[in-house]
Amino acid sequence: MYRARIRVTLKKGVLDPQGNTVEKSLHAMEYTNVTDVRIGKYMELTVAADNRESAEQQVKEMCQRLLANPVIEEFTFDLAEAKS
Amino acid sequence: MYRARIRVTLKKGVLDPQGNTVEKSLHAMEYTNVTDVRIGKYMELTVAADNRESAEQQVKEMCQRLLANPVIEEFTFDLAEAKS
Repeated sequence: MYRARIRVTLKKGVLDPQGNTVEKSLHAMEYTNVTDVRIGKYMELTVAADNRESAEQQVKEMCQRLLANPVIEEFTFDLAEAKS
Repeated sequence: MYRARIRVTLKKGVLDPQGNTVEKSLHAMEYTNVTDVRIGKYMELTVAADNRESAEQQVKEMCQRLLANPVIEEFTFDLAEAKS
């Protein structure tokens, strides 16, 4: 069993209105030293697999097919062994 | 300058309808070996601070005051030195 921690973020150059809104809110709260706020999705899931390579391959596929929009998003993830 | 990578997740025990929906979709795509899908927010931001402790303190405050809902969410973050 493996626990995957997945980060889906907008590709560089893609506008991030959500990030801009949060940045403005932080500035309004006196955190004017904050820049370049980017907002994405964070997902965790448990995958049963025979080995790490198989788990890695499956999580990569899930990201490519469902969890990330390949046109505007990119993803990274890490795997940790999970107690069964 | 520090780049913060922030993960905001629902507290244990808080229902995650989004996670359930994603889990069902993954099962429908034959990834039936996936369980316990949890969806959260991933944020990155750059903070100018005199030192790591000051950056850490400010990011923690931002999470507590704006980025995470303390009633149902918890947050973790890490800091990396960023090129000015």
